[in-house]
Amino acid sequence: MEKVSSNKSFGMFILAFSIFTFLALILPARGEWEPSWSRRAAEEAEAVAAIPCSGHGRAFLDGLVLDEKQPVCECNSCYGGRHCSEFLGAGCAANAVSGDPIFLEPYWMKHAASSAVLVSGWHRMSYTYSDGSYISQVLEKHIRKLHAHVGNAITDGRYIIFGVGSTQLLNAAVHALSPHTSSEPPAKVIASAPFYASYRTQTEFFNAVDYKFAGDTSLWKNNTSDNTTKFIEFVTSPNNPDGKLNKAILHGPNVKAIYDHAYYWPHFTAIPAPADEDVMLFTISKLTGHAGSRFGWAVIKDEAVYQRMLEYVQVSTKGVPRETQLRALKLLNAVLEEGEAKEIFKFAYKTMRNRWERLNSTLSMSKRFSLQKIAPQFCSFFQKIRVPSPAYAWLKCERQEDKDCYSVLKAANIDGSAGGNFSAEDRYVRLSLIKSQDDFEILLDKFTKLLDEENGARYI
Amino acid sequence: MEKVSSNKSFGMFILAFSIFTFLALILPARGEWEPSWSRRAAEEAEAVAAIPCSGHGRAFLDGLVLDEKQPVCECNSCYGGRHCSEFLGAGCAANAVSGDPIFLEPYWMKHAASSAVLVSGWHRMSYTYSDGSYISQVLEKHIRKLHAHVGNAITDGRYIIFGVGSTQLLNAAVHALSPHTSSEPPAKVIASAPFYASYRTQTEFFNAVDYKFAGDTSLWKNNTSDNTTKFIEFVTSPNNPDGKLNKAILHGPNVKAIYDHAYYWPHFTAIPAPADEDVMLFTISKLTGHAGSRFGWAVIKDEAVYQRMLEYVQVSTKGVPRETQLRALKLLNAVLEEGEAKEIFKFAYKTMRNRWERLNSTLSMSKRFSLQKIAPQFCSFFQKIRVPSPAYAWLKCERQEDKDCYSVLKAANIDGSAGGNFSAEDRYVRLSLIKSQDDFEILLDKFTKLLDEENGARYI
Repeated sequence: MEKVSSNKSFGMFILAFSIFTFLALILPARGEWEPSWSRRAAEEAEAVAAIPCSGHGRAFLDGLVLDEKQPVCECNSCYGGRHCSEFLGAGCAANAVSGDPIFLEPYWMKHAASSAVLVSGWHRMSYTYSDGSYISQVLEKHIRKLHAHVGNAITDGRYIIFGVGSTQLLNAAVHALSPHTSSEPPAKVIASAPFYASYRTQTEFFNAVDYKFAGDTSLWKNNTSDNTTKFIEFVTSPNNPDGKLNKAILHGPNVKAIYDHAYYWPHFTAIPAPADEDVMLFTISKLTGHAGSRFGWAVIKDEAVYQRMLEYVQVSTKGVPRETQLRALKLLNAVLEEGEAKEIFKFAYKTMRNRWERLNSTLSMSKRFSLQKIAPQFCSFFQKIRVPSPAYAWLKCERQEDKDCYSVLKAANIDGSAGGNFSAEDRYVRLSLIKSQDDFEILLDKFTKLLDEENGARYI
Repeated sequence: MEKVSSNKSFGMFILAFSIFTFLALILPARGEWEPSWSRRAAEEAEAVAAIPCSGHGRAFLDGLVLDEKQPVCECNSCYGGRHCSEFLGAGCAANAVSGDPIFLEPYWMKHAASSAVLVSGWHRMSYTYSDGSYISQVLEKHIRKLHAHVGNAITDGRYIIFGVGSTQLLNAAVHALSPHTSSEPPAKVIASAPFYASYRTQTEFFNAVDYKFAGDTSLWKNNTSDNTTKFIEFVTSPNNPDGKLNKAILHGPNVKAIYDHAYYWPHFTAIPAPADEDVMLFTISKLTGHAGSRFGWAVIKDEAVYQRMLEYVQVSTKGVPRETQLRALKLLNAVLEEGEAKEIFKFAYKTMRNRWERLNSTLSMSKRFSLQKIAPQFCSFFQKIRVPSPAYAWLKCERQEDKDCYSVLKAANIDGSAGGNFSAEDRYVRLSLIKSQDDFEILLDKFTKLLDEENGARYI
């Protein structure tokens, strides 16, 4: 009987085990969702994301593929090797040229699940949305919600249009505000130095009959009373390159301003109050960091200006790609859903403030270089006084002989953007602080060495 | 002993069952991939794709959401109701206006797994690819491979650039081929009626100093010997609206042609030989049907023209959104991998041929309406003589009094595009044959009724 009893209890154990495993087998099939046609896309994306690039690079789905294997790692500046693990050494130049907002890349890697989007093969093949427009109504609503939440712009009762980056909207606005009758002289397009180069290059490039670039705003300060000529003033606030919260300089019935608010987010500036200008431009590039997505929008008061800008985008590109609008929606949704929408702003502000403090501290000893001064200011979004965190350093070479500041830095292996590119003196250089952490560390390292030499030279 | 033996065999059975279920439980975990951070995006996309819209519509991830529930079905014309199951009745007009290539939507629904793409939150945030350009090298290679496979264009030794739809490239090409010195008169931009309206509207809209729209090519046939003026001739082949394989009419040292090859695919025409023009434009819109993606490309022989077109796209929009380039890559990859890349062409040709045959057969009895004639022709891609399958019907109202053909059709509840839109007589109307099957069936139905009335009237 002992054997039978032992057999019996073994049998009971096996039975219980078997019921457990059987249930475990069928339960996931019922409770947990399993991908079907989306599996391949999801698997491809995760496989690429799992390619190890040592924290100094990343691989992309559409990256170059060598030897028919997986896409290669695309490394940050000064890093190389198959897995971006090799530092290319002290000879590699610090690259602080472009306004590539890669400082936000780690944020999105951390928020992978909420920001990923799967585009089906048949997603929005039509030219238009169901209302016949080129503009996603749902995305437009998200944009209004975001501005209301951040408090950086008034959108109630305003028109909104989208552009292929705010780049496209710059010229759309110039076009819309120009005269469209041959009887009027071309509008004069102006901006206050230092200013973002595209205002000039784009206006000159398209070479339209209706407008001409006419240089610095200060040239026209006392000349706007002549009512026959329209003036279109670009106002960048915060300003690229120096971070100042600029205001329009010219006023009058024949003056129109285009407010470029690309950087008017808590990342880069205090938000004293919601902006409420006639024509305001924004871009996802400097909000979520997706410069490559080419998505911008304009907030417009006047219906006629709105209609003309809308027509510009339609004639030029038939709107903004639907994939881009879908992804922008997903990203804004992620911004709004994460921790009462403050998380990305806290991350971005903290990162930028930290970089600015470290650069200031490094340069504080120098008499050769100085940075722009930005005062702490009350921010209605964070509900406190905040210290500066600009997107760019606007560095000045103080020595009389250093008229070509770009070359002075270049000699120390620091690549910036010369003041002349912003219609300012070449005694200035713009240094981008919004690139990858690697780029910033290398920049700081080069300055430390350069200042060591400066100090060394002083004591010799 | 009998009981023991029975217990023992029961035990053995349970043991075997248990081993089987245990293995079944752990094997998928090892063998089959499970989504991690991509799960939410994949699940969202599949849930939206599963929303039932009765085959007369579809729901999209970024569709309007009512009552905080799932996105609504977006129905084809003349269908309504929550699930697009309600036919709106005989009073609903046939819509044959736009060139929306929705006839390819069922193809992509069938090829869901190979065409889906998952975009991570950190996918290509930078302005540029790793080579510093705005153009995906991998996508460019796929485009060259596709042209070689189809045999519709020579790309070896040619430059390729991308645009936000071929729409953007039309003006980029005009810009690039125009004089850029104030000493030369503006270039004359011309096209042969009937022609696609954008050539005129875009050229006039941008109103540049360097070029002017100058009407029909025929006006300038004997006027190009004057060497001071440049001519830029738009040549559409196959032509929109009439499907003809046009060739440039003007020739000479001061004449440049822009070949718009949007429809030069086996879907719509025989491919007699690979095209080999100086400037050729293509678009994914009429290849895979993704009009909403706004992706076009140009194949260019001359380096200076290439550089100027490239600059145009850079200044205008800083390239094409990276999501769009990623999706275009996925779609072209799907085209190339499916059944030696013939499948989509077979599907598209079959669909378009079928529609053309049915429309011809319906109109064959009519003396009131006629369609353009297209001869069967040898196609180097299909390696046989193929019958016509044009994208548009170019319908003529034959009755003397029917000078306004658009209104004649409109009265019969058929919406087309008036000949005047193509700088042709209003005795003609363009009817789009590339929309959804629903649109086509309704169009055919309206014609059948209209012709019944015509025949009825004849016998009264």
